[in-house]
Amino acid sequence: MDVFPYPVARIGIIGGGQLGRMMVKAAKRLGCTCVVLDPTPGSPAGQVSGHQIVGDYHDPAKLRELCESCDVTTFDIEDIDSDTLEELAREGRRIYPSPRVLAVIQDKLTQKQALTDAGIATAPFIPMPEPTPEAFAAFGYPLVQKARRGGYDGRGVVVMRSAADYPQHLPVPSLVERFIPATKELAVLVARGRDGDCRCYPVVEMQMRPAGNMLDMLLAPAEVSRVTAAAAASLAQRTVESLDGVGVFGIELFLTETGDLMVNEVAPRTHNSGHHTIEANMTDQFEQHLRAVLGLPLGATDQLSPAVMINLLGAPGHRGRPVIKGLAAALAIPGVCVHIYGKAAAAPLRKMGHVTVLDRDLASARHKAERVRAIIEITAEDHP
Amino acid sequence: MDVFPYPVARIGIIGGGQLGRMMVKAAKRLGCTCVVLDPTPGSPAGQVSGHQIVGDYHDPAKLRELCESCDVTTFDIEDIDSDTLEELAREGRRIYPSPRVLAVIQDKLTQKQALTDAGIATAPFIPMPEPTPEAFAAFGYPLVQKARRGGYDGRGVVVMRSAADYPQHLPVPSLVERFIPATKELAVLVARGRDGDCRCYPVVEMQMRPAGNMLDMLLAPAEVSRVTAAAAASLAQRTVESLDGVGVFGIELFLTETGDLMVNEVAPRTHNSGHHTIEANMTDQFEQHLRAVLGLPLGATDQLSPAVMINLLGAPGHRGRPVIKGLAAALAIPGVCVHIYGKAAAAPLRKMGHVTVLDRDLASARHKAERVRAIIEITAEDHP
Repeated sequence: MDVFPYPVARIGIIGGGQLGRMMVKAAKRLGCTCVVLDPTPGSPAGQVSGHQIVGDYHDPAKLRELCESCDVTTFDIEDIDSDTLEELAREGRRIYPSPRVLAVIQDKLTQKQALTDAGIATAPFIPMPEPTPEAFAAFGYPLVQKARRGGYDGRGVVVMRSAADYPQHLPVPSLVERFIPATKELAVLVARGRDGDCRCYPVVEMQMRPAGNMLDMLLAPAEVSRVTAAAAASLAQRTVESLDGVGVFGIELFLTETGDLMVNEVAPRTHNSGHHTIEANMTDQFEQHLRAVLGLPLGATDQLSPAVMINLLGAPGHRGRPVIKGLAAALAIPGVCVHIYGKAAAAPLRKMGHVTVLDRDLASARHKAERVRAIIEITAEDHP
Repeated sequence: MDVFPYPVARIGIIGGGQLGRMMVKAAKRLGCTCVVLDPTPGSPAGQVSGHQIVGDYHDPAKLRELCESCDVTTFDIEDIDSDTLEELAREGRRIYPSPRVLAVIQDKLTQKQALTDAGIATAPFIPMPEPTPEAFAAFGYPLVQKARRGGYDGRGVVVMRSAADYPQHLPVPSLVERFIPATKELAVLVARGRDGDCRCYPVVEMQMRPAGNMLDMLLAPAEVSRVTAAAAASLAQRTVESLDGVGVFGIELFLTETGDLMVNEVAPRTHNSGHHTIEANMTDQFEQHLRAVLGLPLGATDQLSPAVMINLLGAPGHRGRPVIKGLAAALAIPGVCVHIYGKAAAAPLRKMGHVTVLDRDLASARHKAERVRAIIEITAEDHP
């Protein structure tokens, strides 16, 4: 049975961003070919796949064209027409994670309900179909409002400390949850195979930007006790098992002041908190995801070196053809690995790349990452 | 000065094989775009570059088209029309390593003469423009005949123990050198920047296939004394410096029975003995090569984990669309990283991929690599 005429598989990827780009590279390494579906011609993933269908993630015809031309389809985003995917899955198309799981997770309210139903610790919440000052007040401040759909990279999430923050609220169907004063935000990448085999990566710490709720710096491994690390892995694994997920999932966790762990969010895909695995771990998250969705054995998740990762964001006030400043200076620092995503245009806070720093000492890696952040700047040409 | 409008550089790569394929991936990670020149449409490198010029390495017009459309041109093979490259370099095109260095190295006789002139230890040799039984006998057996041009992967090299081996000789302009009874064959990857900065990777041991003179298994690091490792690095670095090389060079060495080191061959390009650096070292050889030829700072060469590498060769008697057997079984072994090159057709002994095994213990990695070699087989469909 273990016989694969080349290509090992034709893989469809919905979404042509950086996650898809890194997934395509892993796919080709494994002897697969790829087709990417993305509305932007020459998307980051399309540049390496060699084949892109230009189309929207909500276009049933394009989704069908992709799934019907591939052996297995997966995705690097969540904002997809999951009804069409469910229909294609019913017709026998292989789509992982399953469109059912995607549908549950892409709506943050049903995601929370699923976690609660499975007995997974998570912040107390209520649905809020129509946000009003009275409804927020009735739930009580401080709170976190989350839009049911379409949020990512901090978009769709608002922390409201008191009624004075009401003007920042999102006027869309939402849930509100209790604000958790976390001492750390952690993340665990979990890979789960089609056969149910599960592998967790060592828990990492996500330091968030105070403004914007975006990942600022990732420390791998997290500086937590062994007990906490094991508990985080266990909770993350139970989360993915309860959802019957197949593929790599990013599980974001709060470590509370009382030492408890709670699941904050679930991403049914490879995750920003796992970029360091390309250099630092035995099997990177992208290959691991592909192994899972292809029904191949999962790889070892051992970490070979401490690592710190920062995102390279577009500078404020700049749009257009990217200009990378400080690349040479950053590369002069030992252990600095730069990843540029090949996006045709920069925009403020847009993820244009990332840097992973390897160092035997995590504190030293962190110090180097801080230097890199001060050195590299991604702006745009004045006349794009 | 450290400002790069995207793309950081347009890189031309002459040769679209596996080395070019891995180089393209590194190039895109660094924010570069690539054009590949290769006669086979959809070459391994062309599949990831997104842009390939289909043409021969000896076609002056195609070489010119490539170099004129790129900021920097490099190569993953040696059998190129170096006269045209020299002409392009004189016109100001940036080509690294320099066509002059390529010309010296691609002719094994001038390569040997250059090494000898620089005082680099190497096996005694004489030119042999027209091989005859008398000429071989006059030099004395055992000897090694090397064709001046066109050899690679053991082709163009014949070991002749005695006059009885004469029928195996190559009827082409050659050199003959003294057969060196080596206890180990070693290799050192050396990166040298445009500014002369040099970085050596830890010395590795190449175990060769008895038949065919091809690399059978690579052990990284080599099991040699610290003194020998340092001497190997020093000799390799002096070799590249003496040639004024820019880029990554693979320096193959003999460790003799008396503990001496001699340079066997020089490859002016990334090398089969450095594939493990993708997973095992801080900076992989492909990114390192690009840093060198682009004038960027060289990266750290530290090895993070012991590693063993084997090539995946086409099985004897099989030609046509590749069929990969045992992929899943091999991936089930922890630390096994499989690289498939995407070649459209398998052929006997053709390099179809490689496997790097990471393990904390080199002996265990080696044992796993032997298991993988017994498990994975690349054949071809009966009806291609």
